[in-house]
Amino acid sequence: MAFSYEHARPALAVDCVVFGLDDEDLKVLLIQRGVDPFQGKWALPGGFVRIDESVDEAARRELAEEAGITRVFLEQLYTFGAVARDPRDRVVSVAYYALVKLSDHRVVAATDAREAAWFAASELPSLPFDHDEIVGKALARLQGSVRYRPIGFELLPQKFTLTQLQRVYETILEKTLDKRNFRKKVLGTGLLLELDEVEQDVAHRAARLYMFDKKRYRELEKDGFLFEI
Amino acid sequence: MAFSYEHARPALAVDCVVFGLDDEDLKVLLIQRGVDPFQGKWALPGGFVRIDESVDEAARRELAEEAGITRVFLEQLYTFGAVARDPRDRVVSVAYYALVKLSDHRVVAATDAREAAWFAASELPSLPFDHDEIVGKALARLQGSVRYRPIGFELLPQKFTLTQLQRVYETILEKTLDKRNFRKKVLGTGLLLELDEVEQDVAHRAARLYMFDKKRYRELEKDGFLFEI
Repeated sequence: MAFSYEHARPALAVDCVVFGLDDEDLKVLLIQRGVDPFQGKWALPGGFVRIDESVDEAARRELAEEAGITRVFLEQLYTFGAVARDPRDRVVSVAYYALVKLSDHRVVAATDAREAAWFAASELPSLPFDHDEIVGKALARLQGSVRYRPIGFELLPQKFTLTQLQRVYETILEKTLDKRNFRKKVLGTGLLLELDEVEQDVAHRAARLYMFDKKRYRELEKDGFLFEI
Repeated sequence: MAFSYEHARPALAVDCVVFGLDDEDLKVLLIQRGVDPFQGKWALPGGFVRIDESVDEAARRELAEEAGITRVFLEQLYTFGAVARDPRDRVVSVAYYALVKLSDHRVVAATDAREAAWFAASELPSLPFDHDEIVGKALARLQGSVRYRPIGFELLPQKFTLTQLQRVYETILEKTLDKRNFRKKVLGTGLLLELDEVEQDVAHRAARLYMFDKKRYRELEKDGFLFEI
């Protein structure tokens, strides 16, 4: 390979902010570090990019290896490139954020013998490296995107009630929304499929279940349709 | 340094999409490549990240070295990490986009003996590497951001007319806007300072000049103010 760039190269890593939502609040998945630096500290799942995989593939691989999480919504967030962000060496990290259905991922499989656990986003421990900053940026992105892209559905089971959907938005946006107005807006998108089913095993009156019409959204998106809630 | 990561590392580069706006259209700055691969082809300015500079610093340095451009609006766009995006070697590129006042940068200083020139965004030559994709992503980001962040002002001289401002939005959004409605919206933000000056050297009736009140915007932004046009 005739390539003249033989200077010292920064190492390249990926880090993932994985969001889930349970009955109480927005959660973030953390991994207990098995090695120094910061051994024993909770941190974001991540690792180094291999020479023969794309950066996106590295993020998916690390999520699978460290948390047993596959086939989820995953998007690139931002690249963190400060010189001294890692005490070991020059490491640049491409951060991603993922949205998972907690019902599918309540039990986290930590395959390489490290602990993994969900923490409330509002009560995270202090994280090593610049992981606090990465989580902050991911939260801001989520709050900025949820009203303009149909990503809130990624946090819900496939079939959900309008009350559950409203709680997704209220939790992410950290504010109470008017029920009537919210329902008008979400139903007005024309993207909710009303099912011939109601919730099961609830003490209160069982509510109607809905699904997000992803196929129709993809079609509308091509025509420049703007989702807004 | 006790650091066990000694695998092959991807090289890390930056590439910059520099936008400017003249009387006719949106322009992108390209550099004629001085070396192989793609010697002689027009491409985005960029280069490798040095071990002792942040990724942001690398982008600013490359812009200064390759185009003589300093002190401009510059933001990270996206990191392009496909395995085969560079025929020489594994190179991951952190892309940035910059907005410049063309009046300040009409003459581009190519310091390392390479040609630099502005091309209409709608008529770019086919670019090497994945630079077409990078430009496409930058255009989409610009179109998606201009209505919600006061970045359009970065493309204008410090003092501008409302007609010039409208043309910025029309050029970026690629559509005609209603004059009355546009003026109502921009003046309604409370962020335009009406100056006691009018345009000079124009054949038509000289129009009022305005400035963007950046200081006030910074204050409002802290309180969660949302810019929208």
